[in-house]
Amino acid sequence: MSSQPIIFQQRLSVEQVEEGTALAPKFDDRGLITAVTTDAESGELLMQGYMNAEALRLTIETGETHYYSRSRQMLWHKGATSGLVQRVVELMIDDDQDCIWLKVAVVGGASCHVGYRSCFYRRVPIGEAYESKQRNGQVELEFTDTEKVFDPKGVYGDAPNPTIL
Amino acid sequence: MSSQPIIFQQRLSVEQVEEGTALAPKFDDRGLITAVTTDAESGELLMQGYMNAEALRLTIETGETHYYSRSRQMLWHKGATSGLVQRVVELMIDDDQDCIWLKVAVVGGASCHVGYRSCFYRRVPIGEAYESKQRNGQVELEFTDTEKVFDPKGVYGDAPNPTIL
Repeated sequence: MSSQPIIFQQRLSVEQVEEGTALAPKFDDRGLITAVTTDAESGELLMQGYMNAEALRLTIETGETHYYSRSRQMLWHKGATSGLVQRVVELMIDDDQDCIWLKVAVVGGASCHVGYRSCFYRRVPIGEAYESKQRNGQVELEFTDTEKVFDPKGVYGDAPNPTIL
Repeated sequence: MSSQPIIFQQRLSVEQVEEGTALAPKFDDRGLITAVTTDAESGELLMQGYMNAEALRLTIETGETHYYSRSRQMLWHKGATSGLVQRVVELMIDDDQDCIWLKVAVVGGASCHVGYRSCFYRRVPIGEAYESKQRNGQVELEFTDTEKVFDPKGVYGDAPNPTIL
């Protein structure tokens, strides 16, 4: 780990932020930046989370994903409980620097607390498929993945489910 | 377009939301849901935006992406100005239904208002690369894409830049 903690630079101009090489992330009024996490090999979207400044700093310094859990309101080293650590293969930032893209390799192959490989295991029908399948405007989601990679109860035990209604 | 507008179902239980087939998206206190957009062919992350209920409904019904622009505070049919419409190939929703994944085909091949193919054209060095490259904790971003697909001035003219400092 570095003796000098990472310093994010000030946002001075649109040109600096969009066309420059300064790392000047925009944290929102909650102090968070959006993080999008894909599987570095398959390109599949695994999850979408948030980072505060500390989580981003730790991710950059350690090469393992750290997020900020909004439901638990705390720093969250992904995999600390489940062992399913995400190793960052490549970290990208977007044009206006308010979104982080993490390409990761997942130890154990699962990223979703429900037990699936990805958090995105259901498809929403669109366009003609929506038209033909809707009943009174309602549609059914289609499962694209039905096989759980792990048993959440065995991994998380009695820990509260992070999903909030 | 459907005569019956799409109806999002009520969120009744964690099991229904995570394991069921009801489309019951969670809009946050601003009325927005996060949308992550990837290139259906390459898997590359193109952009991350937000949708309100109307934008999600129109995306499902038309098969073209609609977002909610926070900077302009209005519904935003992507490509209406630039012609760079995104056709949705597949639409996925995540476990707790607070994030939408759009796999799209982009007319014209560009998604970023700066002119690049993707909004993510800069890499942040991490781990050992960070350690070796940092100076007093600061790092330089590395451009991974240097070729603009279009000239933003020619496409957007005098429209205000959406980036906010």
